[in-house]
Amino acid sequence: MELLFLGTGAGVPGKMRNVTSIALKMLNERGTVWLIDCGEATQHQILHTSLKPRRIEKIFITHLHGDHIFGLPGLLGSRSFQGGIEPLTVYGPAGIRAFIETALHVSNTHLQYPLYIEEIEEGTVFEDDGIIVTAGKLDHGIYSLGYRFAEKEKPGELLVDLLREDNIPPGPIYKQIKEGKQVTLTDGRKIDPDKYTSDPQPGKIVTVLGDTRPCDMAVQLSLGADLLVHEATFNAENKKMAHDYYHSTTSQAAGMAMRAGVKSLCLTHISSRYTREDERQLLNEAKELFQPVIIARDFLEVLIN
Amino acid sequence: MELLFLGTGAGVPGKMRNVTSIALKMLNERGTVWLIDCGEATQHQILHTSLKPRRIEKIFITHLHGDHIFGLPGLLGSRSFQGGIEPLTVYGPAGIRAFIETALHVSNTHLQYPLYIEEIEEGTVFEDDGIIVTAGKLDHGIYSLGYRFAEKEKPGELLVDLLREDNIPPGPIYKQIKEGKQVTLTDGRKIDPDKYTSDPQPGKIVTVLGDTRPCDMAVQLSLGADLLVHEATFNAENKKMAHDYYHSTTSQAAGMAMRAGVKSLCLTHISSRYTREDERQLLNEAKELFQPVIIARDFLEVLIN
Ligand SMILES: [Zn+2]
Ligand SMILES: [Zn+2]
Repeated sequence: MELLFLGTGAGVPGKMRNVTSIALKMLNERGTVWLIDCGEATQHQILHTSLKPRRIEKIFITHLHGDHIFGLPGLLGSRSFQGGIEPLTVYGPAGIRAFIETALHVSNTHLQYPLYIEEIEEGTVFEDDGIIVTAGKLDHGIYSLGYRFAEKEKPGELLVDLLREDNIPPGPIYKQIKEGKQVTLTDGRKIDPDKYTSDPQPGKIVTVLGDTRPCDMAVQLSLGADLLVHEATFNAENKKMAHDYYHSTTSQAAGMAMRAGVKSLCLTHISSRYTREDERQLLNEAKELFQPVIIARDFLEVLIN
Repeated sequence: MELLFLGTGAGVPGKMRNVTSIALKMLNERGTVWLIDCGEATQHQILHTSLKPRRIEKIFITHLHGDHIFGLPGLLGSRSFQGGIEPLTVYGPAGIRAFIETALHVSNTHLQYPLYIEEIEEGTVFEDDGIIVTAGKLDHGIYSLGYRFAEKEKPGELLVDLLREDNIPPGPIYKQIKEGKQVTLTDGRKIDPDKYTSDPQPGKIVTVLGDTRPCDMAVQLSLGADLLVHEATFNAENKKMAHDYYHSTTSQAAGMAMRAGVKSLCLTHISSRYTREDERQLLNEAKELFQPVIIARDFLEVLIN
């Protein structure tokens, strides 16, 4: 899994940071890309990457503020115009359907692929053999969700070389051993499956939060995550402003990472009041409480491993 | 009056051309800027110019295709966020109100300025002492308007130096002379007002058409214009495709300019299939029928004089 930051700014686009969108690339794992949020000009940002809009299979919207959704109608239309025919599902809070359907209807946009819109609340949003996506309600001015993307444990691999060394011949019993079943050979030997399989691989966990003040749900969604992506609209000093506008400071984001015991932290949704020169200070404020931490920039890629 | 092209592409944004928007700058004449169309990321384009969103007083939408309107919600919101408090009026075909109001409502956007939305049809759209804006229905797949912006004649100036030379003393009669009234001086002289005023200055006329096939209304809206901005989505060869998709070719646009007797022509809404190298060919196709003609690029400024 990799995260590709398409927009890392707050509120309004700036020259340095576009409004919010993050791509969760799972090309090796699932052959697909998911998006979290889709601010205006997300499709423009994608033009400068190797992403193909037709590979985008799901879009998870954290909340309905304009800087997180105004790029949706254009992206959906262009995906069709550029030959996308695979289904696409948009998940988001109530209201997302009215927004998308009105924009597509008024503009006479006819998609060449099935579009599913799921208005969701807290809980399991999506689950299959490989992954489970859980949403939780954060503390923002409007209904805002955080998403926890938890890959499922990958079962251990069969240690074929070892089996052969011990003169256990191939056959249907290999499958049984892999599934963890005790088997008895024709020569009477009892086989311990654990000996002949590698340890199961734990799945990776990425948590991406929507805009929020510090809150218990932020911690709960992030528990033990390999990577937490947390907003840090303001610097540590502007705690009061962060509270008044339902946002977080650098230090507050780091505090959440600490409480949740995550493995790493990435700060995003940075106010355009902060320059490139201010970034070191923002980073240091977070580092005082939690490490490792980075500040996202547009087009930053983060490998989760 | 100046035109500033903010987006000159067709259908979907490309690296070279953004989707459609044009600024009609009248800073000297009226202290304001008007927009024609507002495709996605128009506010992003504006970041690279000296335009101030708060100076935008009116937005004229030609038609509701996404590449002409999907930048509206973001621009309206950012104009407020950045301190715009002056009223703004959006003119456009029926449906524009539902689009804007749904986007602002769903995203919980509260504008700090009065927003007026006028759903319009053919006819006079706006008129005051300085200008008259007329709309006419073109030939596109959906209801598409062209706009004619016609400045009113500026009355002649009083030739004060000449009046003084002829020993006509300043006073209320200067105003009467300026207004074209015959006056008689106390010494009996009869004053011909035409002799003491400069010729009235004809107003400039700019016509900006929405997407369209060649049609009589395109000619009617453009009659005698100083500048016609006409779409040329396709090259001359792709006449059939232009017809099928309700667009025009370079040659067809030049033909309209010729029939309307305009003073100059600017082609825009160029398909992304054409590269910078193709532009010379596109231009030559138009030149065979009409000159002077140019092809717009993003951020091109055209002075109308
Ligand atoms: Zn935001
Ligand atoms: Zn168009």
